[in-house]
Amino acid sequence: MVPLTSVRPRLAPLRRLARSAAARRADGVFLVEGATLAAEAAAAGLGVREVYIEGARADEDERRLGDRLAGAGATLISVEAGTLARVGASVTPQALLAVVERPVASASEEAASFVLVAVSVADPGNAGTLLRCAEAAGAGGVIFAGDAADPYGPKAVRASAGSIFRLPPALSQDPLASLNDLRAGGLRTVGAAAGRGLAYDRADLSPPLALVVGNESHGLPSSLAGSIDEWVHVPLGGQAESLNVGAAAAVLCFEVQRRRRDAPAADGTVLDR
Amino acid sequence: MVPLTSVRPRLAPLRRLARSAAARRADGVFLVEGATLAAEAAAAGLGVREVYIEGARADEDERRLGDRLAGAGATLISVEAGTLARVGASVTPQALLAVVERPVASASEEAASFVLVAVSVADPGNAGTLLRCAEAAGAGGVIFAGDAADPYGPKAVRASAGSIFRLPPALSQDPLASLNDLRAGGLRTVGAAAGRGLAYDRADLSPPLALVVGNESHGLPSSLAGSIDEWVHVPLGGQAESLNVGAAAAVLCFEVQRRRRDAPAADGTVLDR
Repeated sequence: MVPLTSVRPRLAPLRRLARSAAARRADGVFLVEGATLAAEAAAAGLGVREVYIEGARADEDERRLGDRLAGAGATLISVEAGTLARVGASVTPQALLAVVERPVASASEEAASFVLVAVSVADPGNAGTLLRCAEAAGAGGVIFAGDAADPYGPKAVRASAGSIFRLPPALSQDPLASLNDLRAGGLRTVGAAAGRGLAYDRADLSPPLALVVGNESHGLPSSLAGSIDEWVHVPLGGQAESLNVGAAAAVLCFEVQRRRRDAPAADGTVLDR
Repeated sequence: MVPLTSVRPRLAPLRRLARSAAARRADGVFLVEGATLAAEAAAAGLGVREVYIEGARADEDERRLGDRLAGAGATLISVEAGTLARVGASVTPQALLAVVERPVASASEEAASFVLVAVSVADPGNAGTLLRCAEAAGAGGVIFAGDAADPYGPKAVRASAGSIFRLPPALSQDPLASLNDLRAGGLRTVGAAAGRGLAYDRADLSPPLALVVGNESHGLPSSLAGSIDEWVHVPLGGQAESLNVGAAAAVLCFEVQRRRRDAPAADGTVLDR
């Protein structure tokens, strides 16, 4: 491994990237921790600008990945053990940290048939979990709308388990406009709310649709009601009053996936995995 | 509000309760933060031993709850603003903190028909999310087995949103013995593992059954395979390799609930909510 720059990097820019959504947006980059996630980011085609490695702590995988990313154009920076802890991206930092270019939100063909919209989801862990779940359930797009946690923050990136690289979310300041755009594009908007509408397994969740989930405490704002075509809920037992937004989204996203698996394709075959 | 003891409490015992599962077990108590959760704990019949209130920060609800719990036998302790932050139970502490007696694990009638078993689930947030999900899906019991996060830790209690009071988990050091006990009691054990067995919607998930989920990174240990009657998986799309354990458990738990809702009861009626 040949470090290309000095061993005393300026940490302030990294700290800003760890803490500030505005800084990540302004610079067009975000932090990716650890060899596994950094390799996934590169494999997804994202540009890796800088790779910081704590030489004394790094294992063989981390060194090799550092060299490979340097070969592909990243600046490789060897730092002393303990340096990355001071960046503050996580409580237990790994020995490798990458500065990665933000992807452009995807709008693949599938995006037209199943999109997850998260309105004002506040917890970064939940934001990442929603991305991971949406990818696994086959969603073609994810939109974080309103005053939401930044999905490019370190905790959200970790929780997404790499899904954020392959299913880059769109960010929207205006949930109402986003819903209306989706409807104009031919998607039904299906809002999730405790006790409202039909139980999810009795509702029409066949694509094309946009599944809309809300804030952890307040759910979806009433101002969006006029742009929701149908409401669904997950029936609750016990004295539970609501589900974690990640759990509710998982149940609903995989119900959509199930309808798609059950539906015969255009050529008459049935998808199954 | 009449504080019954001094305003300079010894914080060391509270700090131990916040940090140490062994201390919580030895003392038979755990910490519950905030008026909402403390009221739910009392409503579920749990004994509240002590209530700490930051008088200067507390709102009317918190004061009133403190008085009510004191009337029911709790020791009410008024502390200066900022004191509860030093307990370390959460980053943004509320103005009320209760020391609550641990409930005894429930084994209600329903426990015989649907139990969630979490083996070596390491993240406290996930532990709480699993409890919340299990209650909402109508499980009669939850078992945390193996080297797992303590569900009575502050983060797990918060994530459970009160479900831990109403569906107190059993803790088991021996997952194999727990599975065999459940089987001896007439429950089929259904293990969740990526890509293994049938897709969940094609598998037999009708009660009585125990749903068994594993560690965030490693899943279920192979040593348990002999005590798993059937394997199921959640079919994944995209390049996602796995689901968050909370998301997988949500999909599976609500599938069990759905089969129970769809099944006619003994008297021929169909449950629906």
